[in-house]
Amino acid sequence: MNILILSCGTRNKIVQYFKRELVGKGLVMATDCSDLAPALYDADKHFIVPRMDDDGYIDVILSICKENNINAILSLIDPELSLLAKHKDDFLNIGTVPIISDFDVVEMCFDKYKMYEFLVDNGFQGVRSYIDKDTFYRDVDAGVISYPVFVKPVKGSASININKVSSKEEIELLFSRFDHLMIQEFVDGTEFGADVYIDMISNEPVALFTKQKIKMRAGETDKSVSVKDEKLIDLIKTFVKKAGFKGIIDIDIFKVNGEYYISEVNPRFGGGYPHAYECGVNVPKMIINNINGIENVDQIGIYNEGVYMMKYNEIKILK
Amino acid sequence: MNILILSCGTRNKIVQYFKRELVGKGLVMATDCSDLAPALYDADKHFIVPRMDDDGYIDVILSICKENNINAILSLIDPELSLLAKHKDDFLNIGTVPIISDFDVVEMCFDKYKMYEFLVDNGFQGVRSYIDKDTFYRDVDAGVISYPVFVKPVKGSASININKVSSKEEIELLFSRFDHLMIQEFVDGTEFGADVYIDMISNEPVALFTKQKIKMRAGETDKSVSVKDEKLIDLIKTFVKKAGFKGIIDIDIFKVNGEYYISEVNPRFGGGYPHAYECGVNVPKMIINNINGIENVDQIGIYNEGVYMMKYNEIKILK
Repeated sequence: MNILILSCGTRNKIVQYFKRELVGKGLVMATDCSDLAPALYDADKHFIVPRMDDDGYIDVILSICKENNINAILSLIDPELSLLAKHKDDFLNIGTVPIISDFDVVEMCFDKYKMYEFLVDNGFQGVRSYIDKDTFYRDVDAGVISYPVFVKPVKGSASININKVSSKEEIELLFSRFDHLMIQEFVDGTEFGADVYIDMISNEPVALFTKQKIKMRAGETDKSVSVKDEKLIDLIKTFVKKAGFKGIIDIDIFKVNGEYYISEVNPRFGGGYPHAYECGVNVPKMIINNINGIENVDQIGIYNEGVYMMKYNEIKILK
Repeated sequence: MNILILSCGTRNKIVQYFKRELVGKGLVMATDCSDLAPALYDADKHFIVPRMDDDGYIDVILSICKENNINAILSLIDPELSLLAKHKDDFLNIGTVPIISDFDVVEMCFDKYKMYEFLVDNGFQGVRSYIDKDTFYRDVDAGVISYPVFVKPVKGSASININKVSSKEEIELLFSRFDHLMIQEFVDGTEFGADVYIDMISNEPVALFTKQKIKMRAGETDKSVSVKDEKLIDLIKTFVKKAGFKGIIDIDIFKVNGEYYISEVNPRFGGGYPHAYECGVNVPKMIINNINGIENVDQIGIYNEGVYMMKYNEIKILK
C-alpha cells in the first residue's frame, strides 16, 4: 500500500499522519515542483516534478504512480484538484485511486457563484451573491441588501483581490476594470470550519469534525476550538450528500444570528485538519481502509468539545 | 539556573532550545497574556500574566522572578523590549539579568529615522530617509532620489501602514492626514538577515549567522539559506560594536548593486533564529554561559554555507 501526495508544500503534518498509519505496511511518497517544499523531506520517497501547468505534467505523475505501485493519490493545493478529478480514469486504469470528488463537484467549489446557486436551489443558506450588478442595485433600492459589500473574483482563491466597497461608484469602477466579478453580502459573524470524510465505498459521510476559528493569520486559521452542535452537524451531513462530495473535504461556515451559512468548500485536506486528527478523527486511516476495500463505519461526532488547537512554526533543514 | 521567557506566543522553538541546554540544570519558564500562546506549554512552568500595558505589569513579572529564582529574563516581542531595558536595574536588584541592550539603543531600533541618522553619522549605508518632506522634494528636483518611495510611520512595526507612493500629491495627502511619517527610498534588492550574539561580559560579538531570505509570508521569513560573505560579516561586527548592542539581536539587510544597506534591528531573538540554531549557532548556551559568569569565545562564522531552512506548521493541543 503506497500513497502519493502531490504538491505537498508545507503540509508536513499530512505526510506524517499517513506515515504513522502505513508504518511497516507501505510507503508515503510526495511531490512538489520546488525542492524547498519542507513536506518532501518527511516522505519516505520524494520527487521534484515540473510545474502543474507544464505540458506533460500529468504524464509525469502517472509514470511515478506506475513505477512506484501507488495505490492512492491526493493533492493538497486547489489548482490541482480539478486536474486530478479530470484524469480520474487515467489513474484508475493503472490501479491508482485519486482521493477526490467528481470533476463537476470540484469545479463548483472554485466558482463562488455556482456554489451560491447550488446552495439556494437546494434550500441551504448561502451568503447573498450577485454577478449581475443591476440586480444588486435593484435589491439595494428594495432594501434587500445594503452597503458595505464585498466585490471579489468569481473564481478567486484565498483573499486575493477582494474589495470591501460602500458605493455604486466603486462597484462601477471595479466592474469596468475587471471581468468575472461578483458582489457578495458582508457577513459579520463567527467563523467555523468542518473537516468531513465521505466514505468512497458507501458515499456516506463517516467522519465530521467542527471547530470554531479563533484567530486568523494570512488567510489561515491560527487557533481554533472544537465544537459540537447537532444543528450544524445535520446541516453539513445533508449538504455533502446533496452535493455529492467524496473523500476528504474542508468547509468554511459563518454563523450569523444563530443561522449557519455555508461559505466555501475546499475538496481536499484543509490547513486546519491537524486539529481534527489530534482529536481522534483519523482520516488517513479511513482512506487506507477504503483503498483496502473496507467500508468505514460512521464515526461522526466521536471527539471532545472544547479542545483548542494552536499553530506554531517548526522548521526543516536541507543541507 | 532558571530562565523566564516573556510574551512567548508562538515561539515554541526558543523555549525548546533553552530547555535542551538546561535539562537537569534548571527550568525554563514562560509567560503570556493569553492562555492560547502555544509556547507556554513547552515550558517547564508557565504563567498567564496581565497585558503588558496594564498598570502593575512589571511588578507581576518582578514577583514571578523573585518567587521562582529566575536568573535571566528575556522577551520575544518588540513593545516589551523598551520596558525590559527601562527596568533593567529593578531586575538586577533581585538577581535577575535581563538579556537586552541598553534603553537608548533599544529605543533607536524602534525609531526608523533615528536609526537612519545613526547609520549615516557613522559611515554606514542606510536606506535614504526623510522626515522633512520639503528636503525630500528638493532632493527629487536635484535628482538625488526618485519616485516611487515608501511613506511609513517613523515608529511603525512590521509592514503596518506602509504606502508606496509615486507623486507629491500622495505625499501631501498622507502627511496632512497622519503625524510622524517618514519618506524612504524604495530599495529593490536582495534581503538578508543576521542573528548576532554580543557577549554580555566582553561586549564583543561572539556569534554571527547570516542568511539570504528566499520567501516571505505575512512579514516573516518562510525560507532562507545560510551565506557567508566577509564583507557583510565585517560590516555587521563594526555596526553592532559602534551601536553598543548587547545580547541577542536580529538585523535586516538589503543588498543593492553589491552594497549592503542595514535596514532594521530587532534587539531580540528574530523569527528566523531557528535557522542559525540548527546550523550550530547556539545562543541559548552563550546566554547561560554569561549568566554563569563565563565569557564566550568568538565563534563567528563557524557554520556551513548553503544550508536551507523551511518553515511549516506544527500544532499544540490544549484540552
